[in-house]
Parts: sequence; C-alpha cells; structure tokens
Amino acid sequence: MLTSAILGASGYSGAELMRILLRSADVQVTAALAGKSAGERVDTLYPDLAGRIDLVFEPLELERIPRVDLAFLALPSGEAMSIIPHVRARAARIIDLSGDFRLPDAALYQRYYKHAHAAPSLLGKAVYGLPELNREQIAQSDFVANPGCYPTGAILALLPALKQGIVDPQGIVVNSLSGVSGAGRSSSVELSFTEVNENIRAYKVGNHQHIPEMEYVLGTATGSDVTLTFIPHLVPINRGIYTTISARLQHAITQEEILDLYRTAYRDAPFVRIKPGTPEIRSVLRTNYCDIGMAVEHRTGRLTVMSVIDNMVKGAAGQAVQNMNIMFGFPEVRSLL
Amino acid sequence: MLTSAILGASGYSGAELMRILLRSADVQVTAALAGKSAGERVDTLYPDLAGRIDLVFEPLELERIPRVDLAFLALPSGEAMSIIPHVRARAARIIDLSGDFRLPDAALYQRYYKHAHAAPSLLGKAVYGLPELNREQIAQSDFVANPGCYPTGAILALLPALKQGIVDPQGIVVNSLSGVSGAGRSSSVELSFTEVNENIRAYKVGNHQHIPEMEYVLGTATGSDVTLTFIPHLVPINRGIYTTISARLQHAITQEEILDLYRTAYRDAPFVRIKPGTPEIRSVLRTNYCDIGMAVEHRTGRLTVMSVIDNMVKGAAGQAVQNMNIMFGFPEVRSLL
Amino acid sequence: MLTSAILGASGYSGAELMRILLRSADVQVTAALAGKSAGERVDTLYPDLAGRIDLVFEPLELERIPRVDLAFLALPSGEAMSIIPHVRARAARIIDLSGDFRLPDAALYQRYYKHAHAAPSLLGKAVYGLPELNREQIAQSDFVANPGCYPTGAILALLPALKQGIVDPQGIVVNSLSGVSGAGRSSSVELSFTEVNENIRAYKVGNHQHIPEMEYVLGTATGSDVTLTFIPHLVPINRGIYTTISARLQHAITQEEILDLYRTAYRDAPFVRIKPGTPEIRSVLRTNYCDIGMAVEHRTGRLTVMSVIDNMVKGAAGQAVQNMNIMFGFPEVRSLL
Amino acid sequence: MLTSAILGASGYSGAELMRILLRSADVQVTAALAGKSAGERVDTLYPDLAGRIDLVFEPLELERIPRVDLAFLALPSGEAMSIIPHVRARAARIIDLSGDFRLPDAALYQRYYKHAHAAPSLLGKAVYGLPELNREQIAQSDFVANPGCYPTGAILALLPALKQGIVDPQGIVVNSLSGVSGAGRSSSVELSFTEVNENIRAYKVGNHQHIPEMEYVLGTATGSDVTLTFIPHLVPINRGIYTTISARLQHAITQEEILDLYRTAYRDAPFVRIKPGTPEIRSVLRTNYCDIGMAVEHRTGRLTVMSVIDNMVKGAAGQAVQNMNIMFGFPEVRSLL
Repeated sequence: MLTSAILGASGYSGAELMRILLRSADVQVTAALAGKSAGERVDTLYPDLAGRIDLVFEPLELERIPRVDLAFLALPSGEAMSIIPHVRARAARIIDLSGDFRLPDAALYQRYYKHAHAAPSLLGKAVYGLPELNREQIAQSDFVANPGCYPTGAILALLPALKQGIVDPQGIVVNSLSGVSGAGRSSSVELSFTEVNENIRAYKVGNHQHIPEMEYVLGTATGSDVTLTFIPHLVPINRGIYTTISARLQHAITQEEILDLYRTAYRDAPFVRIKPGTPEIRSVLRTNYCDIGMAVEHRTGRLTVMSVIDNMVKGAAGQAVQNMNIMFGFPEVRSLL
Repeated sequence: MLTSAILGASGYSGAELMRILLRSADVQVTAALAGKSAGERVDTLYPDLAGRIDLVFEPLELERIPRVDLAFLALPSGEAMSIIPHVRARAARIIDLSGDFRLPDAALYQRYYKHAHAAPSLLGKAVYGLPELNREQIAQSDFVANPGCYPTGAILALLPALKQGIVDPQGIVVNSLSGVSGAGRSSSVELSFTEVNENIRAYKVGNHQHIPEMEYVLGTATGSDVTLTFIPHLVPINRGIYTTISARLQHAITQEEILDLYRTAYRDAPFVRIKPGTPEIRSVLRTNYCDIGMAVEHRTGRLTVMSVIDNMVKGAAGQAVQNMNIMFGFPEVRSLL
Repeated sequence: MLTSAILGASGYSGAELMRILLRSADVQVTAALAGKSAGERVDTLYPDLAGRIDLVFEPLELERIPRVDLAFLALPSGEAMSIIPHVRARAARIIDLSGDFRLPDAALYQRYYKHAHAAPSLLGKAVYGLPELNREQIAQSDFVANPGCYPTGAILALLPALKQGIVDPQGIVVNSLSGVSGAGRSSSVELSFTEVNENIRAYKVGNHQHIPEMEYVLGTATGSDVTLTFIPHLVPINRGIYTTISARLQHAITQEEILDLYRTAYRDAPFVRIKPGTPEIRSVLRTNYCDIGMAVEHRTGRLTVMSVIDNMVKGAAGQAVQNMNIMFGFPEVRSLL
Repeated sequence: MLTSAILGASGYSGAELMRILLRSADVQVTAALAGKSAGERVDTLYPDLAGRIDLVFEPLELERIPRVDLAFLALPSGEAMSIIPHVRARAARIIDLSGDFRLPDAALYQRYYKHAHAAPSLLGKAVYGLPELNREQIAQSDFVANPGCYPTGAILALLPALKQGIVDPQGIVVNSLSGVSGAGRSSSVELSFTEVNENIRAYKVGNHQHIPEMEYVLGTATGSDVTLTFIPHLVPINRGIYTTISARLQHAITQEEILDLYRTAYRDAPFVRIKPGTPEIRSVLRTNYCDIGMAVEHRTGRLTVMSVIDNMVKGAAGQAVQNMNIMFGFPEVRSLL
C-alpha cells in the first residue's frame, strides 16, 4: 500500500482528499499537515469523518514532512511555491493542487496572483494534470500541477471545438457560476451565509488568476492564440461550477455533428459525459464527472458550450486522485465511482 | 381614488401587484380575477396578506370584468390576447404584463411562443412600457405592454452603449441567471425544491421567447440591427435576475468614460443606479431598482455590462406601477420606495 | 419632525432600522454611529440603500452622541450598558435593542451573559418593550428595553394560555428555529455559507441568554413561576424565527376554544394574527407581524403553540419602531405596513 | 452474486438504492420497476447515473416481477400492501421500505394512513428493520419492514434512556426538522422551490402516520407505555432530519453518565455515533450514520436528546442495504462507507 501525506489538509480540498482516499485500497494517508488547525483531531474539524479517520493535524513545518510515496499539496496558491523544494526531497511524487506551478512564466504570477514567484526555476517542470489532455505525460511524471477548478470546466468544454478549428479562438466569452466552497474555508463577512444566500455577484471580471491558465493551456494544446473574457460569479450553492461559453463558429456545423465531434473526442475519457441537452450541476455533485452540453445557433453563427463539474472533486481532490491513479498505474476510475 | 382590477391575480405577479398597491393612496384594487383560485380568499393563497386585504378571487369570466380606471393583466402569455378586446371595452387604461403585445409581428409569436396570435390587429397598438426608454409615449398611452423580466435587465444594460455606438450590435452575448419565481406559481416536478436547490441549469438556449423582444426593442431604439445570443439559467434563489453581457467594443474607451456615459444616460431615471463595481442581486431585492455595473477589458477589446433587478418588481409588478404612475401623472416613484 | 440617532448603525438591526425609518414622515435619522465602519458611507456597506440615504457612519464616541428626540441603541449586548448613561444625558427618549436592560437582576447577567453588569443601578428602570403586553407603560416611558428576538416569538405564543391557566407553567418545551441574520453581521467560519447551507444545528441548549428573559417576563405577567427548556436551532434561511412550544394542558379545552381565547387576547394587537392551521415563516418575512397557530392534542393532554416572526422586524427593528410609535403617540402601525 | 429487483424504482428512495448498490460487489440490480416512468431510461430521470447504470424502468405489473434473491419495495405507503403477496411468491427475501407492514394493527392504518389495510393477515409477519434494535431477528428473517425516516431518528435517540428508565415514557416531546426529499419526488405547488425556500412550516401536528410507529416500537422494546407528541417541520434543505427530543428525567444523572450510557448502548452499532456536543445535519449527509447528542438540564429536570440522519440513507435506502447485509450475512457496513 502506498503512503501519502496531505499538506494543507485542513482546508476543504484537503478534507475532500481524505474523504476520497478513505475508499482506496491502494493508498493510505499517513500524515495530515495543516497550519492553523495543528494539534486538532481531523474529525473535530470535519465531524462527518468521525469513526472513519484517526488522525490529528500535524504542524505544517518543514521537518514534519514525512518520507512518502506521494505528497498532495492542498495549500493556498502562493504557499506551495516556497515549500515545494522541501517536499521534493521527501516525497517520491507530488500532486500540487495550488496554482503555483500551472503557468509557464513568473511574470504571469506577478500580474494575476499579485506576488513574485518564489521558485521560478521550477516553473515548467510540472505536468499540467488534466488527464483528458495529458494522460501520457502524467503517467511519466513525478510532479503534477492539478488544474484549477474554473479551468477544468472551461478547458474540457472548449478543447474539441478549438482543436478542430470549429470556433474562433479569439473573443471567446466564458461565464462561470461557482458554488461557495470554491472560495475555501473562510471567515470573511462577504462569504457569510446572510451575504451569499439569495444573492449573486460577479467578481474579478477580467482579472481572475485563472484567465492565463485557460488561455495558456488551450493555446498550447490547440496551437492557436486563444483570448477569452472570463466572468466568474458567486451563486448560493455549496458545490459545483456551471460554465457557459459562447464562441463564434468558423464553419457551418449541425447540432448532431458537433455532438458527435465531442463524443469522439472524449471517447476514452471515463469522466466526461456528452449530453444531448443542457447539463445540470446536480448530475455531477460529489462525483468526478464533467458533463458537457452544447447548442449551435445558426441565426447568430455562434456555438454555446456548457459544462458542469463539482469544484471539490473534478475541480480539485477528485482530479488529484485521478492523476494519482494514472501516475501509479491504477485504473483511472479507482476510488472515484 | 382610482379604481383598478387585476386579471390573473392569483399568480406571483398579480400577488406582487396587490402588495405594492396596498401602499398606494392613489389607487384601489377593486377586483381580483383569477382562473383556478376563484372563490378562494386572497389571503388564503397568500397568507402574508392576512389582515391587509379583504378580497375574494372572482372568476375570470368576461362578464365579471368590472368598469375601472385601470386594468392590470397579469395572465400568462397567450391568455391575454383573447381577452383584451373585452378589457378595452371596460377599462379606461390597460397595463398588460404578458408578452402578448410586446412584439410587432404575428410571425414572431408563432416562432417563439409556438402559437398563432389571436388579436393580430392590436399588435403595434401598445406602447412598450420601459419608462427609461419610452416615458413620453407611456404618459400619452391608454395601453401599455409591460416589458418581460429578462428584457428589462438586458435592455437597460445595453441601451447607452448601443445608442452611442460604443459596442458592436452584432454578436452580443447575454447570460442571465434567474430566480425561480420567474417561472410563476408552478406545480412541475422540475421546479420542486429538491430539483432546483443546490442545482443550476441553462434552458431554452437560443430559442427563448424574450430574444425577439430584446432584439426588436434595442434595434428600434438604436436604429441598428441587433443580434444577440441569449442563455437563461435557473438558479436556486427566489427572486432576482443577474444579467451579464459581453459585447465587442467598437471604440477605445476607459472605464471612467463608460461609467460617465451610463450615469448621464440614466440621469433622470429614478430607478437605475450605476455602480462603480459589480452589482449584486440583494441590493435590488423587493425594490424597483435596476443596478448596473460594467468593466472595460482592453486586452480583449470587449465590454462586460452587468445588471440586476428583482424579476417580480422591476421585472413585472413594480414596473407596472411605475407605468401607472406615469400614465396617470403621479410622481414616478410613488408607492415604489 | 423628530430627530433620532442610531448607535450601532452598521449591524443588521441598525440597517433594518434605517430601512424602516426611510418610510417615516415623522422621524428623521440624524446620525448613524458605528464602531468598525466609521467613515464609510452607509450605502457602501448596505448598497440597497444607495440613492435613498446620504449618511456616513460616524465614530461611536461619547462626544459624538447628538442631542436628539430619540436614540436607538442597536449595539451588541454588553456594549449598551456602559454607554447608556451618556445617551440618557443627550437623548430625550431611548429604545435599547440590546439585552442589557431587560433583566431585573445583575446576577442573571453574570450567569447567562457571562459578564458583570456595568450599570446595575439602571436595572429595572426600562420598560420591557413588548407592546402586546405593556402598551400603557411604554406610552409613558422614556426608556424602553426592546425584547429579544426569541422571547418575542415565545412570549406572544404563551401569554394567553398561561394567563388563563390553560397550561402548566412548569416543564414547558420551547424549540426555536432561527434564520442566520439573528447572529448578526459576522465573519466567523461557523456562519459562513458552506457551513450553514444544507445544515441544521442546535446550540446553547439549556444556557441561552434569552431563557431568563422569557421566564421572567412570562412569570411576572402571569403571576406564576414559569420554567422552560429552550432549544434554539440555526437553520439555513436569512430571516425568520419559527417557535414551536409544547406545554401540558391543565384543563380540557377544544381547538376552537383555544383559538377563540387567543383571538380575544390579541383583539387589539394590530401585529398578531391567529391562524387556524400551522403558521409559516414566509407570511411574516419583512413584516412586523407575529402569526400564531396552535393544536390541542387530547391523546397526550398537551398543547402545541407555534409562532413565526421576522427576527429583524418584529424581533428587533420593527418592534423598536412600534415602540417609538407608542411612545410618541403615533398610530401603532405607522411606517410598519 | 445476488440478484435483486427494486419495485418503485423511480422515486427518490429507489434511485438512492440504485446509487448505493452500484458500489456493491455482492448484489446486482436485475430489474427496476416503476409506475409512471416505465419505458424511460433510468439515467434520463436520474442523469447523475449516466454511464453507470444501463437499465430501463419496466412497468410495475405483477407478471413483470422477476424471480430474485431479494426484492426491495420502494413504493408509497398503501401501494406495497396489495402487491406484496405476489412479491413473496417470486422473491426469496423482501425488504419493504413503505410503512405498510410496520404496525401490528389494521386499525392503526385506518386511523393514521386513512385507508383500510389490504393484507391484514400479513401484519406482524415482518421484522421491524432497525438493526440497532433487532439485529438478530433481521438476520433470521425473509421479510423486513424498513423503518420510517422520522422513527429511525427518534427511536435511536430515545431507546437507551427509555430502556434504562432514565426518562418518563409519558409526555415526551419530539420535534423533527426534515429536508424536502422526505416528501418524495413531487409536483405539488406546496413543495415548489419558491414556496419552500426561505420558509419553514410545521405540518400534521399530532396526526402524522409515524406517531404510532414510534410509540409501538419504543413501547414494545422498553416494556412501557410510551406516548409522545410529534411535531414535524419542513425546512429548506434537500436531505436530512434533525430530531430534538425533550423528556422528563426520572432520575438524577450527570451529563457524563448519560453520554456513557448511550456510548455503551451503541457500542456494537457501527452507524451510531455519540457526540459530546450538539450534532449537525451535514455530518451525516449521504452517509448511513445517525449522530446523537444530549444535554441534561438540572434546572428543569429534563433531558434533551438530538439526533441527525440523512432521510434518504439511514432513513430509507441505506438502512435497507444495512438490513440486506445482515440478512445475507455480509459485513454490516458493506457498500455503506
């Protein structure tokens, strides 16, 4: 049985990782390291885990990082970059759930994450862990950068159409609606129940840190210069991201042709389901699926693509386990169905 | 004191009209006619009105339509068109909250509402009741077609930029997120709590009946051929519509310039508030306000405009009362603050 | 026009007071004092008030307390007691929304509020501001202690049955379900959306600070020794308190008799509505009403009484305005319908 | 591998059974029979099951009932009673999720379910399937009546205290707060999103059909005459039941003693967790756990016990699988963790 450690285990992604790995017969969580909650029992913070996990959060100190087969970093973006050299010295393989190693260029971190990169020499070393795009490279890698939640939904929705040149890579409009867990375990007034419930608001319009991730990954994968407008919204649900994309068609295509194209593109992807109608958040909640629907609009010459994921699963912990399965040669769906 | 009747009073819009008119010292609701609930007390169906309103729903029969100064039609689209000739014979003025007289052309009803128009000779007779666009004509009219909920939010968000030629009238992308009351008082499984809560879904992508209303009103008002992609979504809130629009900029413009342009355009509109940041649903709940925010994105050459309304108030009953105020020469904000 | 000041105006109760007083032609809010938000515009913190109120929060400093006809104290319990002597020197009349002057005995503050009382000499000086119980004394008073939210719902539900000796004053069981705004504007993780949504939890079982308020007020009003078990629960709604009470019947009584008894008891109370069936939260949302329903259970010899209020209105700001109306001789319902 | 059929598979309990059994290596769902949805694919009605289950709902006709090792009846109460003789002829073992065979006496069906019993000769033949109470008898049985959702939470919360004579079996007050899925897949206006969201209401006070089930099972198990007042409430959450019980203490007992008593009582129950504080719904969502907390109140001489379950899992489908495990000799927790 593999040994694993979770660094940043007290946040929502870390807890979700523990929940998923409880189902695993292959991997054991040896240590759960956390900043603020060190010393507290895991099941005090997450009472649903009572009777199922017998761990205490250990301090997130460099000397506490255990020697393990696999380290998951579930730290906030900006914190993983300083600690990662130490983790690499102790863990045979790393899956980093933060955004710290997804972009190729330190300047983008300065611009979108608003701080300098602490380990620029490691940029470009991690494989971008979207299995539907990079399955082969992930299998060979010992360092995987797990995709962001918004990019997972947007990239999966756009890849087939962009790869085939069906839509214009310029001027794409991406609207996403996110559940509140995407903001993490938070004590801000803005995320208190009374401020979020019965409310919706857009935020970070045009400057969200996931914009360069989407554009870079899509651009690299399709060999074109992709620019998109990204407008995230906070909606009063716990989990889930609904992404609705509008792009200009470059070729006439029928609804059935585009559905077939997507079905073919994801034929071997066990977690992507192509829907004849519009997808719904509830179909993917607490699963690792990404459901995708689409609508050709001849009148305006545009394509609408909609995707749904659970931001905590396919958008974070589930995708990390999917990557783990690929890295260690397990069946891709193990512990995830 | 004016006398008024509400036809279709048992639905959510009719009930909201009664709530608002309770605050009025100018207008009295003389009769509440309804189909299914005839014979039932209004405060049995809407217990919040207990002790405040002493009416029984009367049958929605032609001979029951009373002679009044003003008739509000709060019937489903498709039902107002048959009854309206009879209402015109009894009521001095009419405000129709249905979609039946908003479009200029019977063919559009066939295409988008999926049925023939029963009173095509009356098409074009009603003034489109968006006060921020047609205040003068409303004041002169005895027949007002109250705008749809989605068009209210979208048109108010687009008018200034389109009128000034700031954005391309082609290829506009309109994403709207609607509270569930927009679907009316419903007994469908799809709108039951467990199917809607913790869920989001897009619907009627590219074929919603509000598309021709938006395009026609915007096209007429700006003298250009407007085409837009409209994607409505159902989100788990009771009230409110969040509309996020992306359009291609035709001129370079700064964030401050566009804000000023909108502030100037709505200088005399008491219910439109221009926001420096992104608007929020909760700011307009149970009010007649439309809050609008915007973001210029130089990198992509696009403008994002966001608007929020309460679909039951500015999107239906409140706007109807605003129109009533204008038609009868009352201050525009009366009973609405 | 009366002048008034709100001390603690930045919290939810203070904001709700401002919303209600905007409708008043009798009273003007001259100053809004607040601790943390001093210097900020009121409509920045509460954007729904944009265009309606043109105040900046002033610092909550003793020398800033203006000379006014009426001061509302909307401070957290424990903060009003130190400041009140200074307020009494400047304001002709005071309505205190905190719990600081509701109990007769400093020892109860130590026990339930966990701190000493800073102004014990003022205990007993304030009239308990439940108009349905103390209308005459409120009219004569210059210092009113506005009731707590839970006590308002529980006392109104119990008073008639206890006064008539219908139920045993011992062993009463009070279950309350509260919306989250009852906890105030909060930045705690426990009140964040993801922790509260799709969740319910009881809290402070047997030691909530509203227990002595309920027992003291009911005991004094009925001349009996009242003891009750109080179990508050947090439920995922913004506003509203549902209180369900079970008490042992001391006399045989029919459902119709008990309904009549309640109807008679509240004949002159414009904000209490007796319901033949079970009440619902939504009937009283954003209103000053308290709806009460009841069920006699012969099989077990027990009476169930259920009441609903909006905790921000009848449970706080609305009741404060109702008290203001009584204190200044205005019609009791003014600004509240 | 065992074969099984689900009769009434299109409702929420039937769907939840399919979800749980997908994880099983022991049992296969051979047939899913349903009334209204016959002919429809299972994953059309429940799109979360797409790619996971390849069944079409078959008509719920007697001749369609397959010969299987185990039949689950997930039909509404009142429908199972007529069909069960036919099921007994085809299925080696039966687990009935309806209420039709939980009570010992046809008169109680007439009184609480409002209809005559169609198979009175079978009353008393089924073992009441609460494993924590009847594990041995379940293991021997071929006909198990799966407990109701409310009774599961209430009985587990009361059993230890009643068995030990700690609390008075008379005058117990049971308040339950239920998620909306408890009402099943429904098309009633009362259960539509806008009527339930931001609302709470009690219903069936004193006459809910689960009252005799609670009293009978508790009375039989403890050898005393148990009477209780039961007040169910509908709250705006999808899943979960919060039950808060108040009972009169018959003996002095400390908080630690009562906690120990409960811990001992459930020592061998893998799905009951005793909590030192108050339990929360979210801890048990989508699990088969029942979490129980309690509070001794010396001042009033009363005990408060609180329990939480997921009504679809421990309150229905999960408990059915737990019973299946016991009946077939599988580990009790299989497919349920």
